[in-house]
Amino acid sequence: MKIVILGMDGYIGWPLALNQIMKGNQVCGIDNFSRRENVKEMGSQSATHILSMEERIKNLKHEFGNNIDFYKGDLLDAQFTDNVIKKFKPDIIVHLAEQPSAPYSMIDQEHNVYTHTNNVIGTLNLIHSMQRHSPNAHLIKLGTMGEYGYDPGLEIPEGFYEIEFRGKKAKVPYPRLAGSWYHWTKVHDSNNIMFACKLWGLKSTDIMQGIVYGTKTDELDDEKYNTRFDFDEAFGTAINRFCAQAVIGHPLTVHGLGGQTRGFLALNDSVQCISLLIDNPPADGEYRVVNQFDEQHSVMQLAKKVQYIGNKLGLNVEIKNKENPRKEAEEHYYKADHGILKSLGFSQTRKIDDEIEIMLKHLMKYKNRIEEKKHVIVKNIKWK
Amino acid sequence: MKIVILGMDGYIGWPLALNQIMKGNQVCGIDNFSRRENVKEMGSQSATHILSMEERIKNLKHEFGNNIDFYKGDLLDAQFTDNVIKKFKPDIIVHLAEQPSAPYSMIDQEHNVYTHTNNVIGTLNLIHSMQRHSPNAHLIKLGTMGEYGYDPGLEIPEGFYEIEFRGKKAKVPYPRLAGSWYHWTKVHDSNNIMFACKLWGLKSTDIMQGIVYGTKTDELDDEKYNTRFDFDEAFGTAINRFCAQAVIGHPLTVHGLGGQTRGFLALNDSVQCISLLIDNPPADGEYRVVNQFDEQHSVMQLAKKVQYIGNKLGLNVEIKNKENPRKEAEEHYYKADHGILKSLGFSQTRKIDDEIEIMLKHLMKYKNRIEEKKHVIVKNIKWK
Repeated sequence: MKIVILGMDGYIGWPLALNQIMKGNQVCGIDNFSRRENVKEMGSQSATHILSMEERIKNLKHEFGNNIDFYKGDLLDAQFTDNVIKKFKPDIIVHLAEQPSAPYSMIDQEHNVYTHTNNVIGTLNLIHSMQRHSPNAHLIKLGTMGEYGYDPGLEIPEGFYEIEFRGKKAKVPYPRLAGSWYHWTKVHDSNNIMFACKLWGLKSTDIMQGIVYGTKTDELDDEKYNTRFDFDEAFGTAINRFCAQAVIGHPLTVHGLGGQTRGFLALNDSVQCISLLIDNPPADGEYRVVNQFDEQHSVMQLAKKVQYIGNKLGLNVEIKNKENPRKEAEEHYYKADHGILKSLGFSQTRKIDDEIEIMLKHLMKYKNRIEEKKHVIVKNIKWK
Repeated sequence: MKIVILGMDGYIGWPLALNQIMKGNQVCGIDNFSRRENVKEMGSQSATHILSMEERIKNLKHEFGNNIDFYKGDLLDAQFTDNVIKKFKPDIIVHLAEQPSAPYSMIDQEHNVYTHTNNVIGTLNLIHSMQRHSPNAHLIKLGTMGEYGYDPGLEIPEGFYEIEFRGKKAKVPYPRLAGSWYHWTKVHDSNNIMFACKLWGLKSTDIMQGIVYGTKTDELDDEKYNTRFDFDEAFGTAINRFCAQAVIGHPLTVHGLGGQTRGFLALNDSVQCISLLIDNPPADGEYRVVNQFDEQHSVMQLAKKVQYIGNKLGLNVEIKNKENPRKEAEEHYYKADHGILKSLGFSQTRKIDDEIEIMLKHLMKYKNRIEEKKHVIVKNIKWK
């Protein structure tokens, strides 16, 4: 199969590329390296040492032959996007090329407009090219569980639900009540892709993904294949940030009381799920929404896990509550379906406790790289 | 009161400016004149003869004094937008500055991206400036009944509805299932404004407006104050296009069987409703959705009304069904609430039959201007 991975230089894009090459698929990656730039803008760097894309591709070609291509470019460049899709004619397009940070989108007007433009217009350019050159391809788009939001206090189905209103029943989209500009761009994209499926008969899987953690996947044994690992306030997410903090003796910074519940999954499980979706496309014209996470935990539960495992490994881990910079409920009802991936054969490969231990041990090798950027771990980007 | 009208050169913006000046309010308008340009791009022109903004403002100042200002500029220019809001510090912002045509957005990728950028990014620039300089202003944003779409076959409430799901009840946003790229940009804007109200405590009324028709309002007696009137396939809407066709003996072009039901209101009623919303703001932090239309009709019913009234006036009006270029159901359940405006005191000022007669008589004066552009009445922009 021919697979285009948009955002192949990213945290998930890179291990997914390894996974797909090792499965014998033909992979074409694109990236504009904005993640490297944006993390630099935050004053930070990847905790893990990562190679340049040039070196990465050289190593892969050496080991696996010519089944990999890479083009530097931007989805906002309509001509570039069109050329890639036209030339490669993919069976699968995995779209991971979005600005992925909620705090980054909340910094100011400029960062909000950048996030909207990059994500919404980039995705429009992509789907137009797809319609022209690969209308039968399967578009796998990375969204987030955060598109649903947490306000209504209802159980969360996978994208759609059946409701009754004034005596009539219908299956309709579940309400989206996102909590940051970034999350809203993901909702806008979801809506646009749903419409493209209806309008043009494209098929797409829209992944509502939980929070991903970890440094390793089955294919990432070798340090030269490391994927990036962010721990700054904008691009580092809950468990990853806690583990980086634990390694350098920085207190784990929990927002508010840490009662917010979310769905989580290990990086290896994220790659496994996407791989499964690649092998199991929806029908032509179908817009399929899947919720992709393994375990539900509150943020405080996770901090305590990291503390417990860190202390066992001889670290001295403290937890510190800090004012929540986000506008969100401290505690809320949270129960989300995630049965579709299971029905396709997915089962969790990495338990959260085991993975935290693997991660802490791996990150200890990179203690100096985290120490160097200690001052940017807390930046207090406010939701205002 | 100080009122900013964004898109003051437009079909509704201009009569609203007249209405507000005559009520003694202080009006500041902006426009980038994109509507004049885009209609030209379609090969068409306003049926009514309209003056330049320079002449319009000169006439108004002569008659009503200095209560009116105008700045040429674009919401995409963040600095321009910021300067206007900062300088004028409005009590009310009426946002009519969007690309308003569904067919125009469906022409190709470029027109879709233009519509998304103009509408979504323009609105983001506006709300950021509002948050900085006029956080207590009331933002009145023009949306469309088309944001809801017609698929679910449910009654349509005003923005939100109470539902039950797996034993829990909640009031949540009514699903949006728009039918064109343009309509989706309006949904994206609605979502962003809803979030801005929650995030920053802004207050906004989001108008889900039906299809507007007519050439006259209470304030538009004088030909020198004419508002524009479009009849081309992209910018002319159902009743208006039919009336222009009737005047030059062109068959009324009904899409498909014309069974599609929509809500309609006269231009004078649109202005009256917006004026009422100006005088009745929501609470701080409230995001209020109102459905704004008077009467529900099927497209075929309207064509028959225009035919009947046109023939009475001595025109010879034929109706011709043509293939529907849109992807939409021929017939569907349609029942929408519109009680909020009534509860604020609104009652219909113009009945559809009377207004069609007024319109046909008025347009007869401009028969030559419509004749000149006869060849662009049907362009067959397809939903593909």
